[in-house]
Amino acid sequence: MEKRHGPFTGIKVIDLTRVLAGPYTTMVLADLGAEVLKVETPGTGDDSRHFGPFINDVSGYFYSINRGKESITLNLKDTKAKEIFFKLVETADVVIENYRPGTTKKLGIDYEELKKVKADIIYAACSGFGHSGPYSRYPAYDMIVQAMGGIMSITGPEDGEPVRVGTSVGDITAALFTAIGISSALFNREKTGHGAFIDVAMLDSQLAILENAVVRYIVSGIPPKPLGTRHPSITPFQAFHTKDSNIIIAVGNDKLWVDFCRAIERPELIEFPEFETNDKRTENARKLIPILEDIIKERTTDQWLEIFERVQVPAAPVNDMEKVLSNPQLLARNMIVEAEDKRIGVMKMAGNPIKMNILADHAVKKPAPVLGEHTEKVLLDLGYSKKDIETFRKNGII
Amino acid sequence: MEKRHGPFTGIKVIDLTRVLAGPYTTMVLADLGAEVLKVETPGTGDDSRHFGPFINDVSGYFYSINRGKESITLNLKDTKAKEIFFKLVETADVVIENYRPGTTKKLGIDYEELKKVKADIIYAACSGFGHSGPYSRYPAYDMIVQAMGGIMSITGPEDGEPVRVGTSVGDITAALFTAIGISSALFNREKTGHGAFIDVAMLDSQLAILENAVVRYIVSGIPPKPLGTRHPSITPFQAFHTKDSNIIIAVGNDKLWVDFCRAIERPELIEFPEFETNDKRTENARKLIPILEDIIKERTTDQWLEIFERVQVPAAPVNDMEKVLSNPQLLARNMIVEAEDKRIGVMKMAGNPIKMNILADHAVKKPAPVLGEHTEKVLLDLGYSKKDIETFRKNGII
Repeated sequence: MEKRHGPFTGIKVIDLTRVLAGPYTTMVLADLGAEVLKVETPGTGDDSRHFGPFINDVSGYFYSINRGKESITLNLKDTKAKEIFFKLVETADVVIENYRPGTTKKLGIDYEELKKVKADIIYAACSGFGHSGPYSRYPAYDMIVQAMGGIMSITGPEDGEPVRVGTSVGDITAALFTAIGISSALFNREKTGHGAFIDVAMLDSQLAILENAVVRYIVSGIPPKPLGTRHPSITPFQAFHTKDSNIIIAVGNDKLWVDFCRAIERPELIEFPEFETNDKRTENARKLIPILEDIIKERTTDQWLEIFERVQVPAAPVNDMEKVLSNPQLLARNMIVEAEDKRIGVMKMAGNPIKMNILADHAVKKPAPVLGEHTEKVLLDLGYSKKDIETFRKNGII
Repeated sequence: MEKRHGPFTGIKVIDLTRVLAGPYTTMVLADLGAEVLKVETPGTGDDSRHFGPFINDVSGYFYSINRGKESITLNLKDTKAKEIFFKLVETADVVIENYRPGTTKKLGIDYEELKKVKADIIYAACSGFGHSGPYSRYPAYDMIVQAMGGIMSITGPEDGEPVRVGTSVGDITAALFTAIGISSALFNREKTGHGAFIDVAMLDSQLAILENAVVRYIVSGIPPKPLGTRHPSITPFQAFHTKDSNIIIAVGNDKLWVDFCRAIERPELIEFPEFETNDKRTENARKLIPILEDIIKERTTDQWLEIFERVQVPAAPVNDMEKVLSNPQLLARNMIVEAEDKRIGVMKMAGNPIKMNILADHAVKKPAPVLGEHTEKVLLDLGYSKKDIETFRKNGII
């Protein structure tokens, strides 16, 4: 037994997921103390074990979202393997899968079947389009749901082509909603004794995060378009070129406008009636922005950041990954963690953003598992003998 | 007492939050059955009540993320108001705030103070930079953390300027991590009897969602750049112009490439050795993409979608808000919900993407509250008289 170190310590998750959305959910649960056991196909394992970039033949992609989990192999098409799987489910609190809807039913391991084995099991399904509706069985990729769900239509340069959000928000948002569903179901089980079936779709999750774009369309009847970095109704609130790179300046109200004009040593702009209020600045942006562009490009990003910090005008550099990973705030918050691994040495990863006084925030995380690393241990725990395990291995069951 | 309709029915949340991140968290909790009581400043209320677009003077922005909550007004700088607030906390399970760190301490209502009133309170703070570290008290906007956290540096057209993600992922991602933290703390409280202090930062949350961009940088030492809609290592996997708009085509593997070539009636491309494998197609993208561009622009998006659906090649339109809100899958999933409101009639909003068999998914949600709508009811419940309430109102306490 592991020492209690987080809210989900003692919770056992059987993880049938692959690639991104599902594994991200179980990473979040593991970061909060849950014991996550990945069930993988013998021989190949999670598809993302084969995605680059590689470090000594280990997928960095796989590693960074599967830290702290255990792995066993099971060929779920085999009857004996299914028997083993059901024994595992008996010991579990949560089962999660991100197959295309219909797959676990075909395998005979859907919610209805698992309930027979463990009545209060929490079964979470995270899929592209969900377990109902006309698109339910369509194939989904992150980019497909980004395009279909609307976020792409409002992301990109002004008057330019739509672009994909540079990270897989289609997968990750669904992963976070699935983690909320599972967490709330665990609470509910403590209260009522009942399990749950959870069905989260990537497409649904995309709509859920569009916030004011939805209401702007409903009120105006005009679909919002990409605006680059510009804010639709606050000015100046966007990126500017500096002498050496870019800077974001966010003059959120009229008081900040006054501070900003003084900071850029152009107090006379305060007096211009056409720039006096935010509404006027937004209305006259085509006149104002070129004036500011000429001023901002005269100094470097660091020079401007120092100036704006002094007067508390919100500003920020457009950090690339190099700058992000050396950012003093993120370092102070323990957001860049390291795992020690025999195969690849020290691996740097993003940490857990949920900071809690009931969670021991280990600076060094457990490494990601080798395929089937815990098969023997888990099967011995279930009561199988070394000889059984040998037979299973010979017959391709594990 | 409300009939149990979700996992968090019976849970009482005191909500001190404003604008987006905090209110989004409490919307998620309310959608799962929690009773959320917004505590707002007398006279002005949540800042976002004053954000457009407006429908009959009601902020659509405020409305769409505050549905199903109740509202009381309390001037928390007043001693009497604080006494009332503490009485509320005694009856609550969760208190959430998204002030700048330090503010609740100054008001005398930080975690240390609230614990004295209710030992097992769950206190969640959601802020721009978190309650520790050198930037802790800096002002934050969504765009600031998008820029500082790295997502902007990988979003935008290839070889072009970085752009902001069109929705406030800085706020919303932090909101989702906060909801996970609160949910896990509620489970933990059932198990252990202990409350919790939760501290989620928007900047931390940005780093946590960057996934493979982090590891690509760590392995290569080269900061990833924006790629438009293109995939860094899969080809063709991007947007194309059609006769009338855009289409996303996602040829994820070599089998799909064969199906795709047949679907576009160019089977001879299958035989080209330089396009035979995904690696070769990615290597020779500059030759392949122009060929495909010429083909795809010959038909409309709908024509192509029909063709690709038949052969199961993943493809999608780049939907704008109009198309999103009439999408048959989202409609079938009950993802577009309506609230009836006396002031503004029927209001359409994005629904709850967490579908659960233990959650009654009401098609019609409760409306968002008028400022202070529930002040009298709540104060009467706490034992104050109508006369007390009148006095409080006269003295600007409520």
